[in-house]
Amino acid sequence: MKWKSRFASRTKQMRRSTIRELLKLTARPDMISFAGGLPAPELFPLEQMRRATECVLTQRGHAALQYGETEGVAELRDWLAARFSTKGIAVERANVLITTGAQQALDLIGRIFLDEGDAVIVENPTYLALLSAWRPWGVRFLPVISDASGMCVNELDPLFAQRPKLVYSVPNFQNPQGTTLGLEGRLRLLKLLRENDAVVVEDDPYGELRYEGEFLPHLFELDRGEGRVLHVGTFSKTIAPGLRLGWVIAPEEVIEKLVLAKQGADLHTSTFCQHVLYEMVREGLLEKRLPLLREAYQERRDAMLSALEEWFPRDASWTRPEGGMFLMVNLPANVDTAELLKLALQHKVAFVPGEEFHAAEGGRNTLRLNFSNSPPAVIEQGIQRLKTAVDELT
Amino acid sequence: MKWKSRFASRTKQMRRSTIRELLKLTARPDMISFAGGLPAPELFPLEQMRRATECVLTQRGHAALQYGETEGVAELRDWLAARFSTKGIAVERANVLITTGAQQALDLIGRIFLDEGDAVIVENPTYLALLSAWRPWGVRFLPVISDASGMCVNELDPLFAQRPKLVYSVPNFQNPQGTTLGLEGRLRLLKLLRENDAVVVEDDPYGELRYEGEFLPHLFELDRGEGRVLHVGTFSKTIAPGLRLGWVIAPEEVIEKLVLAKQGADLHTSTFCQHVLYEMVREGLLEKRLPLLREAYQERRDAMLSALEEWFPRDASWTRPEGGMFLMVNLPANVDTAELLKLALQHKVAFVPGEEFHAAEGGRNTLRLNFSNSPPAVIEQGIQRLKTAVDELT
Repeated sequence: MKWKSRFASRTKQMRRSTIRELLKLTARPDMISFAGGLPAPELFPLEQMRRATECVLTQRGHAALQYGETEGVAELRDWLAARFSTKGIAVERANVLITTGAQQALDLIGRIFLDEGDAVIVENPTYLALLSAWRPWGVRFLPVISDASGMCVNELDPLFAQRPKLVYSVPNFQNPQGTTLGLEGRLRLLKLLRENDAVVVEDDPYGELRYEGEFLPHLFELDRGEGRVLHVGTFSKTIAPGLRLGWVIAPEEVIEKLVLAKQGADLHTSTFCQHVLYEMVREGLLEKRLPLLREAYQERRDAMLSALEEWFPRDASWTRPEGGMFLMVNLPANVDTAELLKLALQHKVAFVPGEEFHAAEGGRNTLRLNFSNSPPAVIEQGIQRLKTAVDELT
Repeated sequence: MKWKSRFASRTKQMRRSTIRELLKLTARPDMISFAGGLPAPELFPLEQMRRATECVLTQRGHAALQYGETEGVAELRDWLAARFSTKGIAVERANVLITTGAQQALDLIGRIFLDEGDAVIVENPTYLALLSAWRPWGVRFLPVISDASGMCVNELDPLFAQRPKLVYSVPNFQNPQGTTLGLEGRLRLLKLLRENDAVVVEDDPYGELRYEGEFLPHLFELDRGEGRVLHVGTFSKTIAPGLRLGWVIAPEEVIEKLVLAKQGADLHTSTFCQHVLYEMVREGLLEKRLPLLREAYQERRDAMLSALEEWFPRDASWTRPEGGMFLMVNLPANVDTAELLKLALQHKVAFVPGEEFHAAEGGRNTLRLNFSNSPPAVIEQGIQRLKTAVDELT
């Protein structure tokens, strides 16, 4: 059978993810991996999961194993609605859609908004799997520089002239850089959205994981119900990715359209996972877990920053994230981090080359390091291995 | 905010599903619902789920709550590969993709194969959510009559002349009619696929639920590894829909492309659900459950057939499925079952009007009845209620 000629034209835009291939390699036990975006498994709430599952199967087993509404389990939607309601704006159940991970939220948003040729503003660099999700729609990515202060809002004006369908932003501890858009930048961005009648997708997987500085209001909160912000979140980083539970908070009209798209995509998200998760969060699991996660991840971030300081060459620089799971290293312009990766894997340490995250040219001399998945001593050792690889290449 | 003008053009092809809206109404406790395709919740394996979850969290908790490979959990893929291997053909792990329910399998197949304007042969009537999943791609559905003997294979020739990208078929106990394509029809279909260099998507959610007659080989098995059959299956009808676990078995080249599409869609299916399910099936849960399900559902089917015989007018007819969850009733040509539904809901009984399942005109005088979700006494009562509504309308 000749398959190639049978595939849809959009499949030409589907590319293998290097991260994904790396994840396979990094499963080897002697490998130190800074590659994935994995939470620390030793901090998973196993005992709470056990109790919650027991409770759900005993009390609501029939509902938890049956087909459910596409929108999600009502109690969980209400819990999220309450959590995102502020003095200024009441979020209702009808504003919440539960998705199969935040990735599905991004996919569904692409499905209902993006036509071929549409322009989309993205931070450069940005979340790799957003590019994979939206590229097959044939969109034009308009990259805006993202630096130590997050998205460079001052550079947006000429891009808005191209009438982008959506703006995509990870304002807190951005993936891959770990950098954050300040309050002033957020207000400026919202003002630009209003002036240009545009909409932003605010992707906030890491917002709860702040290790220093003050929590900043979401774009969603600052928008005060104007509807210019489609807010995407997930339990993957705060509870467990294996449950595949994310959400969108948006105006009802948008949720309704997302629901239609989700019906075709997977009917609904696992009712079992939703019920088990709801049982945990309604008992206050997040309030108990977040301090533990913040303490552990802060220690890991600090270990990585110290190790870089100690081992990395003077002509390298890196971001200093106030939260999240990643930081980004800039090596001298002549270093190709794709080449470096091959050497690094020989030294049993993995990372993701920065070029992957770029919608436009650039980033060939950068690399993303994850610090949440390894304890401090392993981080120290991994950075030493990486340094050896850097030395060999340069 | 004016949203309508912002939505992608494909959203015009997204329609609200009547079934889904009905499911909301039918949640009322005094309603007898023959509408959904729901398995019997009292037969869910709650105790086995409890034990399996306990075991998974104790022994493999870190893997079960972590991110996983897009392809699915290796042990579950191997289990499926072994199950679908026959003397003639060895199915390998690389031929298996785990999906978020079979619905996602259909969605992903649409994504990688269907371009705007492509022709797709579907049984008429056919599975409603297949139409919703593929309609937004702008495909042309070429309906082929499906009757008491399943897809009318003899009618396919002129349709193949339009060079369809895919053929979609539910050969066993088809949704919505409950009818089955015989062995001769299957062989004929495969011959036509070969002659016309075409590919069939074999959707088989109900195949294990046969209550009389002999099990027939899958199209996948009859194809003997030629690669003309993409086989889609699910644990939703045999274990529990709330886990959202389905699969595709296909040539490796197709699986690879589906994996790329799935990366963008939801990264991977819940590792927690996959591990819990694998723990159950590897201990032989299906072998224990299937006889129980078959016995219970056969009794329900028989109860529905008897009640129809007793209560329904002489000018009505219906299919007599040998398995599955549904049968279809034909009322006299002047009856509009959408109108009938309004009356029926007043009498507290629900069904799905047949027109919903038709890619082409027709079916306005038909209705789909589900018999798996109600015990025999309730079925008897529901059919009486429905008869009252029919009498009032005609």
